Amino acid sequence: MKHEIGRRCIKRMRIRIADAPGALGAFITRLGELGVRFGEITTASIGRSSRVRDVDAIAPDETTFDRICDEVRAMADVELLGVTDVVRERHVGGKIATRSRVELRSLDDLGIVYTPGVASMCLQIADEPELASRYTAIANTVAIVTNGTAILGLGDIGPVAGMPVMEGKAALFDLLAGVSGVPILIDSKDPQLIINAVTAIAPTFGAIKLEDIRAPECFEIEERLDHALDIPVLHDDQHGTAVVVLAALINIARTRHLNLRRTAVGIVGLGAAGSGIQRLLTAFGVQTIHGVDINPDMIARFEGFGGHSTDLPGVMAAADVVIATTGVPGLIAPELVRPQQVILALSNPDPEIDPETALAAGAAFAADGKAVNNALAFPGLFRGALDARATRINDAMKIAAANKIANRAPDGELTPPILDRDLHGAVAAAVREAALTSGDVRYSRRLEV
Amino acid sequence: MKHEIGRRCIKRMRIRIADAPGALGAFITRLGELGVRFGEITTASIGRSSRVRDVDAIAPDETTFDRICDEVRAMADVELLGVTDVVRERHVGGKIATRSRVELRSLDDLGIVYTPGVASMCLQIADEPELASRYTAIANTVAIVTNGTAILGLGDIGPVAGMPVMEGKAALFDLLAGVSGVPILIDSKDPQLIINAVTAIAPTFGAIKLEDIRAPECFEIEERLDHALDIPVLHDDQHGTAVVVLAALINIARTRHLNLRRTAVGIVGLGAAGSGIQRLLTAFGVQTIHGVDINPDMIARFEGFGGHSTDLPGVMAAADVVIATTGVPGLIAPELVRPQQVILALSNPDPEIDPETALAAGAAFAADGKAVNNALAFPGLFRGALDARATRINDAMKIAAANKIANRAPDGELTPPILDRDLHGAVAAAVREAALTSGDVRYSRRLEV
Repeated sequence: MKHEIGRRCIKRMRIRIADAPGALGAFITRLGELGVRFGEITTASIGRSSRVRDVDAIAPDETTFDRICDEVRAMADVELLGVTDVVRERHVGGKIATRSRVELRSLDDLGIVYTPGVASMCLQIADEPELASRYTAIANTVAIVTNGTAILGLGDIGPVAGMPVMEGKAALFDLLAGVSGVPILIDSKDPQLIINAVTAIAPTFGAIKLEDIRAPECFEIEERLDHALDIPVLHDDQHGTAVVVLAALINIARTRHLNLRRTAVGIVGLGAAGSGIQRLLTAFGVQTIHGVDINPDMIARFEGFGGHSTDLPGVMAAADVVIATTGVPGLIAPELVRPQQVILALSNPDPEIDPETALAAGAAFAADGKAVNNALAFPGLFRGALDARATRINDAMKIAAANKIANRAPDGELTPPILDRDLHGAVAAAVREAALTSGDVRYSRRLEV
Repeated sequence: MKHEIGRRCIKRMRIRIADAPGALGAFITRLGELGVRFGEITTASIGRSSRVRDVDAIAPDETTFDRICDEVRAMADVELLGVTDVVRERHVGGKIATRSRVELRSLDDLGIVYTPGVASMCLQIADEPELASRYTAIANTVAIVTNGTAILGLGDIGPVAGMPVMEGKAALFDLLAGVSGVPILIDSKDPQLIINAVTAIAPTFGAIKLEDIRAPECFEIEERLDHALDIPVLHDDQHGTAVVVLAALINIARTRHLNLRRTAVGIVGLGAAGSGIQRLLTAFGVQTIHGVDINPDMIARFEGFGGHSTDLPGVMAAADVVIATTGVPGLIAPELVRPQQVILALSNPDPEIDPETALAAGAAFAADGKAVNNALAFPGLFRGALDARATRINDAMKIAAANKIANRAPDGELTPPILDRDLHGAVAAAVREAALTSGDVRYSRRLEV
């Protein structure tokens, strides 16, 4: 069940189809009846009475997709010209590369950026280490560290199989915020080994982003690295998610005229995401948080941060706003929903309760995880921290990010679109400002790159 | 003395000067008399009777440069409009960045390269780990690892001050061979700590390039990592240098009709470079190598690999070809040079004996380190190893690289120019072929990226 998201199959069918009203509609409708959803539909070429079209089809799994292709081949008015594995195709050679930011047009250029010119740059930094932040890539580079134990909702598939996710994060870092992300894969479940390795290589980076490391190891690794290093260390699954959840809650509170600080919040699932949400909501001023988990260690941690632990019916009975992050589809039975409750069932791709079901059961508002993507937060969060030369990403910085994300959501939406490129710059500016105000920065003067 | 290379000052003067025959020549000649050498001279703008020119001036040090600027200000027919620190300018923000290789034009694109599409890629790799070499950046990425203990000729200035060199290597990797180089800075002199850290993060990379780590630690670190990891591990200061020296010797042997294998070779300085040269020449078939060093550990290592240790006069008396890599300018007195000897005095920027001095003392051929830049070797060496999915860079691969570099040198030159871009592809092809022939590869089938 957990792996269903991964088995979902996105492929591109190239078809020749009549260029007449009704033809495409009939094709799309027929495939829809077979369980296919659609991405982009583009035109590859236009013939006299037909078009060659590329149709991105999303099927629940590979077997279903193959069956659908057989159906298409049997259609009289459609010719299946080919099928492309568009996911594989876009991953060939990897999604990221280290590129030179300087040109080499001549040997004189080489003498400036390499030997002998580079030696003078090295000695200037040796004399005045602070120059490294301006004249090297260090202050713009973030390690994206994983051991592959909690990749997406897929679980422990190992760091190498997790690499496409790390490259995806690095690609988003570049495209959305101009940050250099460097995946670091560590094939170990031993927190001490991971802490030692990251500490050893930390001089290379301006910040450390821990990624898809399972609980409870993620807590120890983050806390100890944060303590050991003078650069920000942030486990995105805890805090990136928490920032976006807070942003969504701020907008829900506005729409529904709630005072978030005085609202009873319930958290179902107290792992990395649940714990991060608890801590950020507490920092934001939420006074009452009920929670439930099956793992006693997670419950103890939750109580240590001031949460009230109970069982699932207890959380549902006590909370006005319920946030579920368990990875267990359908966990919340409709009978447990209270009238006027707000429910965010965030597990992807299948939530703890369908929004429609929750609304039918009396909830005032319900959403699933689609609107709560931590790619809304992490590019700006790190960009702002790097720009401020922050030593950590503190609660004030996270709350500043959440407020900015909330404010940029279009009317009626919980969050803005990820590809709203102005968003990430705006989040970065708010985070930098919060960092400078809080004083968690290495130098008071701004980095003028 | 050692740091002189670093104190050398490359700056760009912007001057207004008469656009008449003789004006530029007089200016250049005057500055030459003051000890300035010149890089590029370009025209910024052309006036009625004058030009604004940008002149890259290379002075021995900052103080001399400032004195020269005062002289220029005093010149009647030249106006000094400004001075740019061209080295600093080209280093602002660092010389490398991680870039996305995929575009994000739409949310559908995002769904293919990030969630949810990426999950299917992850699971395919989990099922069949070999797919990682094709669908992630790992097989194209090389860690450039340093602890900053032997940066250029500057010595132990620490890893952060060494970063401009690591970025320079990564920039050359990208521009010359399409390899992603990732600097990894480790602030420790403990070989065990470095070995542990690199081993921990090794799943991220297709190869490990050790860089500017001092002897003797560099030997232990390389040997133990090479043993522990199933990807190539290569200390460039040993083996990259050795490949280029061998290439130069192959060309010298051709010109002078020497049989290199039967020539008595002398190595003055048995550190990283000297040791790498000894081992590669031995693998190439050179039967007699004499050597000298002041460090007993280096001598023991040299003898362990079959070398004959003696003192400096002994090496000079016994060797037909002498290679010096000590970092000690002027170490070889002219009296020690034998008639018909070949001398490569490689220490930069000041060799153990000036080529002119050596020739005057009777040498048949003499050169300094300018023609022996390991940037001639490492881009193609690693590109070829990655393309073959080599598990190590063995002697056959290094010799193939040396032969290819030698063959591409223009008539009368020891080596080809670094910016001969076809060179690196040709070296890569030769290295890949040698890897496949030798069998030191992970899979027999070629990577079809």
